[in-house]
Amino acid sequence: MSDFLTDSAAKMEWKPEAKCGMARAGHLHTRHGTVPTPTFMPVGTAGTVKGMMMDSVRSTGAGIVLGNTYHLMLRPTADRVQKLGGLHKMMDWSGPILTDSGGFQVMSLGALRKIDEDGVTFRSHIDGSKHRLSPEISTDIQFKLDATISMAFDECPALPATPEVLRKSMEMSMRWAARSREAFTQREGYGQFGIVQGGTEKDLRAYSAKALTDIGFEGYAIGGLAVGEGQELMFSTLDFTTPMLPEDKARYLMGVGTPDDLLGAVMRGVDMFDCVMPSRAGRTARAYTERGTLNLRNARFADDTRPITPEDDSPIAGRYTRAYLHHLFRANEMLGPMLLTWHNLAYYQRLMRKIRAAIVDGSLPELAQSLRADWAKGDWTPDEWPLPNLAL
Amino acid sequence: MSDFLTDSAAKMEWKPEAKCGMARAGHLHTRHGTVPTPTFMPVGTAGTVKGMMMDSVRSTGAGIVLGNTYHLMLRPTADRVQKLGGLHKMMDWSGPILTDSGGFQVMSLGALRKIDEDGVTFRSHIDGSKHRLSPEISTDIQFKLDATISMAFDECPALPATPEVLRKSMEMSMRWAARSREAFTQREGYGQFGIVQGGTEKDLRAYSAKALTDIGFEGYAIGGLAVGEGQELMFSTLDFTTPMLPEDKARYLMGVGTPDDLLGAVMRGVDMFDCVMPSRAGRTARAYTERGTLNLRNARFADDTRPITPEDDSPIAGRYTRAYLHHLFRANEMLGPMLLTWHNLAYYQRLMRKIRAAIVDGSLPELAQSLRADWAKGDWTPDEWPLPNLAL
Repeated sequence: MSDFLTDSAAKMEWKPEAKCGMARAGHLHTRHGTVPTPTFMPVGTAGTVKGMMMDSVRSTGAGIVLGNTYHLMLRPTADRVQKLGGLHKMMDWSGPILTDSGGFQVMSLGALRKIDEDGVTFRSHIDGSKHRLSPEISTDIQFKLDATISMAFDECPALPATPEVLRKSMEMSMRWAARSREAFTQREGYGQFGIVQGGTEKDLRAYSAKALTDIGFEGYAIGGLAVGEGQELMFSTLDFTTPMLPEDKARYLMGVGTPDDLLGAVMRGVDMFDCVMPSRAGRTARAYTERGTLNLRNARFADDTRPITPEDDSPIAGRYTRAYLHHLFRANEMLGPMLLTWHNLAYYQRLMRKIRAAIVDGSLPELAQSLRADWAKGDWTPDEWPLPNLAL
Repeated sequence: MSDFLTDSAAKMEWKPEAKCGMARAGHLHTRHGTVPTPTFMPVGTAGTVKGMMMDSVRSTGAGIVLGNTYHLMLRPTADRVQKLGGLHKMMDWSGPILTDSGGFQVMSLGALRKIDEDGVTFRSHIDGSKHRLSPEISTDIQFKLDATISMAFDECPALPATPEVLRKSMEMSMRWAARSREAFTQREGYGQFGIVQGGTEKDLRAYSAKALTDIGFEGYAIGGLAVGEGQELMFSTLDFTTPMLPEDKARYLMGVGTPDDLLGAVMRGVDMFDCVMPSRAGRTARAYTERGTLNLRNARFADDTRPITPEDDSPIAGRYTRAYLHHLFRANEMLGPMLLTWHNLAYYQRLMRKIRAAIVDGSLPELAQSLRADWAKGDWTPDEWPLPNLAL
């Protein structure tokens, strides 16, 4: 997979190519290759995108993947990953890797964690052993993992929360961001992103954005969304948050989302996304298509001789029928999740390519309208798209 | 995978290339491509080699795979497979496919099945529903599956059994073989194999071999072995059974075996094998190597920066460390079984290629000695094969 390396950059920077409304097309240049944006990052929590060879991930058009500090620090441990030459070498992915800081996942542990000004003490969900994360420790772990993009360590408060709780949490996250930056080792083509917090409060988001840009990062993430607030509130928060961020840096909306979430967020100026949805859905028989999602365990697919979608341009396109995938899921065969994860990741990448092309040629509003209209239509009827007769 | 089709044959036949002792190298010509023998057939029970894309199976050098009539008739059903264009099209494998007759698996159901002269009535292990198999039904199902090689329907008695039980069972199997042949539809390049029964009794095997060759099949299988009798008894049975079979037809030892079993059976004149061992072992962290097997869950692999074996020539060779595979199995990641199944199938194919080359150049006894000596040595020590320093 050396194709990532041919255009490796000495400096991490995001360069704009085109704008359409608030939406931006550009390129993120890194030590491990260049990524066209907007981009969707498949999630490789424990050093593997579940059920996928990394060649297959690459074949969908993915240009950057995500790893999770919390999982990797517990198993196999950051020291082991470092001894194996870093995450890239360990998992056979020579392209860029972004790691989260562990903050979000540690916060989710509830009773198993205790927060103080310095950091967080928590117990492993695997064996109950005690561990510590702080801005310095998280940044050091991400260094050992050899993350192309490290994330600042932050607190992500559970919503709903009072403005006062959100403010205090955000202010601590900003102190942690400064300490994360202090602990970050600059290397050519590597970078670190700060994370804007402040919930759905405009003044808090403004404070946070200013604090981070004063520190100065290679890119800026929007955290604390996609935590149950609903799409409308997420979009209205983006409406006032993205304009607070520098025009010349990449913007990353963490943990988002559905195809419609991605479309709406790109139209509000976001460049990067990560989400477990397409891969998790692939393991539970849910297929993403241009006509919304299908549950392939449903009996109506048992004799459906069509591929999942007529639009698929992935390397596995046209090789498997819905009926076969239905059979694989009913028989609990690993190949079901393997193929459908691949299909769903290919769908997400295809969607991002379409969105990006529409930004470049100035037709994003038209594309958005047509995408949404198709999602609402539901599965192709046999009249629209007849079932091939494959019978012997 | 159109490479299978370039040399498809109008007639199914096995042609010899070389002999070394009793061992034979040859080619099996079929409608769906030519297979160099001796060959190992990966098992694709339910229309999928568990955890593998069929491209990956092909990449190991596999030339023919196996499907199970019992599983496929229950789910997705033979009619459905036929509607999907047959097994080849359904599972994306254009090469030859051999299907068993369902006999062996139905016999294993114990209390759930009832045998009479006409056939077997049994209950599905999936939902308890009632089904029937007979020579005619099994042959018809295999036709619908579009099996390149169909197997005659037989009874496989549990061992140990008295000679009288074995004789009665074998005689019925021979009547069933005649009925299977009668029910078989001749098509260009397709074939049907008869199955020699008779346990470890020489006179019964002789009776069975004669009965089958009198009927006439495109190839002959040796059934009723690898059912717990031990390697020594299996080999001694092969010693007198293979000479009873025609020189000019392929010989298939069903359900065998370990690398050492394969080697010994090839040296006794067997050409074809199938076994779940390499794929099942791949799902339970057991790796086949030139130095015997390794259990990659073992703690000693947590920091082992070497690949599984230095001899691997498969497409995934050298891309993953033992430490990474150890991590994947500890973290219950699907990629562990996926990669190790691939590795194990590649090992089996590599072994068969070595054995075949040694038959052709007349050095099989020397190869056998060296293979066995290496298997006995156990894992390479760090002195013999040092751990690479991959540390960042």
